[in-house]
Amino acid sequence: MKKYFAEFIGTFWLVLGGCGSAALSAAFPHVGIGLLGVSFAFGLTVLSIAYSLGHISGAHLNPAVSVGLWIGGRFSAKDLLPYIISQIFGGIVAAAVLQFIVTGNGSVIGDFAANGYGEHSPGKYSMAAGLVTEFVMTFIFLIVILGATDKKSSIGFAGLAIGLALTLIHLISIPVTNTSVNPARSISQAIFVGGWALEQLWLFIIAPVAGAIFAGIVYKFLNSED
Amino acid sequence: MKKYFAEFIGTFWLVLGGCGSAALSAAFPHVGIGLLGVSFAFGLTVLSIAYSLGHISGAHLNPAVSVGLWIGGRFSAKDLLPYIISQIFGGIVAAAVLQFIVTGNGSVIGDFAANGYGEHSPGKYSMAAGLVTEFVMTFIFLIVILGATDKKSSIGFAGLAIGLALTLIHLISIPVTNTSVNPARSISQAIFVGGWALEQLWLFIIAPVAGAIFAGIVYKFLNSED
Amino acid sequence: MKKYFAEFIGTFWLVLGGCGSAALSAAFPHVGIGLLGVSFAFGLTVLSIAYSLGHISGAHLNPAVSVGLWIGGRFSAKDLLPYIISQIFGGIVAAAVLQFIVTGNGSVIGDFAANGYGEHSPGKYSMAAGLVTEFVMTFIFLIVILGATDKKSSIGFAGLAIGLALTLIHLISIPVTNTSVNPARSISQAIFVGGWALEQLWLFIIAPVAGAIFAGIVYKFLNSED
Amino acid sequence: MKKYFAEFIGTFWLVLGGCGSAALSAAFPHVGIGLLGVSFAFGLTVLSIAYSLGHISGAHLNPAVSVGLWIGGRFSAKDLLPYIISQIFGGIVAAAVLQFIVTGNGSVIGDFAANGYGEHSPGKYSMAAGLVTEFVMTFIFLIVILGATDKKSSIGFAGLAIGLALTLIHLISIPVTNTSVNPARSISQAIFVGGWALEQLWLFIIAPVAGAIFAGIVYKFLNSED
Repeated sequence: MKKYFAEFIGTFWLVLGGCGSAALSAAFPHVGIGLLGVSFAFGLTVLSIAYSLGHISGAHLNPAVSVGLWIGGRFSAKDLLPYIISQIFGGIVAAAVLQFIVTGNGSVIGDFAANGYGEHSPGKYSMAAGLVTEFVMTFIFLIVILGATDKKSSIGFAGLAIGLALTLIHLISIPVTNTSVNPARSISQAIFVGGWALEQLWLFIIAPVAGAIFAGIVYKFLNSED
Repeated sequence: MKKYFAEFIGTFWLVLGGCGSAALSAAFPHVGIGLLGVSFAFGLTVLSIAYSLGHISGAHLNPAVSVGLWIGGRFSAKDLLPYIISQIFGGIVAAAVLQFIVTGNGSVIGDFAANGYGEHSPGKYSMAAGLVTEFVMTFIFLIVILGATDKKSSIGFAGLAIGLALTLIHLISIPVTNTSVNPARSISQAIFVGGWALEQLWLFIIAPVAGAIFAGIVYKFLNSED
Repeated sequence: MKKYFAEFIGTFWLVLGGCGSAALSAAFPHVGIGLLGVSFAFGLTVLSIAYSLGHISGAHLNPAVSVGLWIGGRFSAKDLLPYIISQIFGGIVAAAVLQFIVTGNGSVIGDFAANGYGEHSPGKYSMAAGLVTEFVMTFIFLIVILGATDKKSSIGFAGLAIGLALTLIHLISIPVTNTSVNPARSISQAIFVGGWALEQLWLFIIAPVAGAIFAGIVYKFLNSED
Repeated sequence: MKKYFAEFIGTFWLVLGGCGSAALSAAFPHVGIGLLGVSFAFGLTVLSIAYSLGHISGAHLNPAVSVGLWIGGRFSAKDLLPYIISQIFGGIVAAAVLQFIVTGNGSVIGDFAANGYGEHSPGKYSMAAGLVTEFVMTFIFLIVILGATDKKSSIGFAGLAIGLALTLIHLISIPVTNTSVNPARSISQAIFVGGWALEQLWLFIIAPVAGAIFAGIVYKFLNSED
């Protein structure tokens, strides 16, 4: 039970911190943190949870990560469903808290950092560009996660490498899809935005999970005995 | 005595560095560091003191941190009061030095990075939004501190994780309350600003301490034997 | 074979992440990441691969790095050519994927973060300034790589120091040449841009390799027995 | 001899990287790195050298650091003068290389990131504000250096803590004095700018050295047996 609660808290923090910085601080007049600040925020949610709750649950905070670790042979099938449910639930509670804060100055939530493509892409990138981007970004994210937590890698540095890899992924891809690579983060925002965000949600489930599965397969090959 | 002196120096640096970067550099014409730079500054004060004075005092630098560690069973009750006094005194001396520097080009200190809500929130967020924000941010801050310094976590990385967690907290919440999560930091600025800042100070004592207490309780549950 | 595949994936990520952040996010309206964000992106590609694939291939991701490590006596001559081929191939595939994404909103690739001097330098710096810059930047980059991975240095921190050194190099030199220090990164972009980028490509092969060779010699001197 | 050469290379990199990012990239049109990027650049020069040449010379890169370590009982008096000479020489060579690059597009070097006060302070801060700022910033810088390299601190993290402390110091104080805390960095720029920069140079030698001496004394007290 404790590891599911840790996943709940961690994904709550990922969505509150990442989407919260986007909704509250990115475009603050004159001194806003911009996409660079939002990218750091997403990465630092993972970094801070990895070092504080990682020894309890592994700090996946993302259904695609749990799936990729399972395909890579590093996570048990029986924990897959309760992890994913805890993550989605943590994201939804975070979105509710964030909605309360964001609307606390009379603002509306607007697009609420939801993920989108086509006319709902921040830079109006097509569905195909969004699909390729989410697939490739999640593929490399899982390559980093699987490799950095491998027992042959430098002990202790995984949380740093994985958190900053998520920062990097956001530095590249926010203009394309607002960056998901994480179905729990996409689901929570889509529920509160509704309409187009729910209609486009399929891409932010399928593409990250597919990229994660492919990474699990590549990881197994890279680490097989010759 | 030495550990109290270390808390004094450390909190002096937290307030001078964090509030100093806000007052001096955030809105510097054309090349100002913005809220992103201020967020890094606050986090790096903690990171730099954690690795240099942490082995002397534990580098709390914050009354809410001392309370949370005490509730979590990781800090002795008899040191609570002298730690808090050292922290508040360090913050006040920092504010005096900062006032001397800031006014050195004929400027007035203005709002001096003091914490506020309602019309004194940078983004005009309500008191309720400020309360929830300060409670939740301090709650997660202590979850990170308690977890990252737990003996089951990666040795040595706590200063990095905790410092960058404070950066993250600022990336999210400066627009809401100017970010406190630290009564010592709020008290020192409020004393020099006076008026509204003193009137609103209660929130920046109660909400961080309440969030820290809740985190101590959750930490104890997460780490209890099954 | 697996180490060549790791170099392919790693250099793919370096070019996709570094040049991708430049092409997609640097100048995004109002909240763009600027040269600071691009500098972090390049550095974090190396940091994230160093901790995840470094134990497989050493994470060179750059022909000049492979040459410098060879001159410094730290890399086998027989792997030099297959490493360089894997790196160049990884860069080219990344540029193809990036072209697909960038043009996904109807944009043209334009200069595509290609390296240049004279009228193709971002700040119109001369060929001589570009030569000196690329030589010196790659020289120090290899001094950092050779020193940080030396067995006398702090274990585990090499990936952090090397990645952030690449960030620093970009903070200094993007205005001069768009920063190469990496022939694989220059070749991949030049192929897609053609024309002037191919004509100026020689500088971004010769200067980085010369700087790396000089660093290998200095490293040998610094670590020779007295 | 090798440790003096390492100090030469390291201080060359500190001045080239720190002042170079300021002169070339800080105010680059639309996508400039600003004072935040310059702050990271200075810090990352120290971080990258600490992990690559630190095991050869200790990576002081700064006469005030050498003096502070000597007062703190951590550095031998007989190496003090050759270290300081190597540092100043490294800074001057860096300034010469930087002048060549900066003028490579027809620009003049202008103020060249030289340190100043009064009308030569970036934000027009008085001499007294500059003195206090340089004294306090160098004091804390040495507290961090002495503490983080103490054998009781976390092994390996000193380079990270010290480099990022220098970033933090720049985030606070560039508007006041352009930030020195390092006489070698001030001397090299002042020589190339001449006039006012040479006239004001005394402050950037006296204040950092005084702050470092005070830190050495405090460090000795904090680490004395009770």
